[in-house]
Amino acid sequence: MTEPALLDRLIDALRCLPGVGPKSAQRIAFHLLERDPEGGRRLARVLAEALDRISRCRRCRTLCENEICDLCANPQRDPSLLCVVEQPSGILAIEQATDFRGLYFVLGGRLSPIDGIGPEQLGLDQLRARLNAGELVELILAISPTVEGAATAQYIAALADDAKVNVTRIAHGVPLGGDLEMVDGGTLAHAFAGRRAL
Amino acid sequence: MTEPALLDRLIDALRCLPGVGPKSAQRIAFHLLERDPEGGRRLARVLAEALDRISRCRRCRTLCENEICDLCANPQRDPSLLCVVEQPSGILAIEQATDFRGLYFVLGGRLSPIDGIGPEQLGLDQLRARLNAGELVELILAISPTVEGAATAQYIAALADDAKVNVTRIAHGVPLGGDLEMVDGGTLAHAFAGRRAL
Repeated sequence: MTEPALLDRLIDALRCLPGVGPKSAQRIAFHLLERDPEGGRRLARVLAEALDRISRCRRCRTLCENEICDLCANPQRDPSLLCVVEQPSGILAIEQATDFRGLYFVLGGRLSPIDGIGPEQLGLDQLRARLNAGELVELILAISPTVEGAATAQYIAALADDAKVNVTRIAHGVPLGGDLEMVDGGTLAHAFAGRRAL
Repeated sequence: MTEPALLDRLIDALRCLPGVGPKSAQRIAFHLLERDPEGGRRLARVLAEALDRISRCRRCRTLCENEICDLCANPQRDPSLLCVVEQPSGILAIEQATDFRGLYFVLGGRLSPIDGIGPEQLGLDQLRARLNAGELVELILAISPTVEGAATAQYIAALADDAKVNVTRIAHGVPLGGDLEMVDGGTLAHAFAGRRAL
């Protein structure tokens, strides 16, 4: 009995899940052991395999199990449109919500010199090469409207200008179904300044 | 591409976790792949090992990796006191909150004929054998005060009566720090009827 009991090690290991504290970890451990051992076994197997085999697409930097992801490899997609997102989850969100048929580029973060995240960490050299390759007609920025996001968008817009590629960014404003009183002042000011003719 | 992509399989496998829907599963998958691959690898390893090696203690039916759990094997514990809980998590809760030094017995559920859970599924034959072995002085019921829990407690109390063992149950009432107005009527009626002299 030099090392902790296996159950305690399982509870501790479960805490790597986001938002899971000691109580939830215990609940999850008992759930898997008592009610869903089959699901747990499958999770252990798939998780190990995924961590082993999933890496970044060489073209768009999203997570995938091949050198080039399915989207980049799909000849049906329009290579003249490129949408820049911060994270791979952004691709899933846009694919589910829109009929965008172009390609994507994943930054993996936002410019943040204080955290040591510069253009290199975001793959901006690679993005510049794509801008300069002459295939792009429009670069769409789908980056969060935060201070760091705005700085990142600014930086990328300058790269696109140099390459004479049109840049757009997705609209920021009051979310659909949003109540004006519940929206923060910054968003409202932004939405007001960005009003359009009906 | 006959089977779904590995990332989709991971997201699907994560849904075996209690309370995790498609959105959370996606968030967890990206978290593990991008931010904590080491934690994820450890989780996969420990989870597989735990599901492989953890089974029920032959004496008290809790989850453990040996034939007999550490509590049952501990000669420091008082074998004349036996506390009956529904789930292994009850043992952890009582061990953390009280100075109880006796042993435990885990039912693994409550009597519920409609779900096919009878005395046999709860190991009540085993509990009866322990009651009749003549070592017990007090049987403490720490079973949830629900309808099924009350029926289960009643059944076990009858077994203990047959074996001439004292039965007690933990107090039900208003939780500490609980506001009377926030407590449900059933609990309040129970607490009122169970009032004690100060």
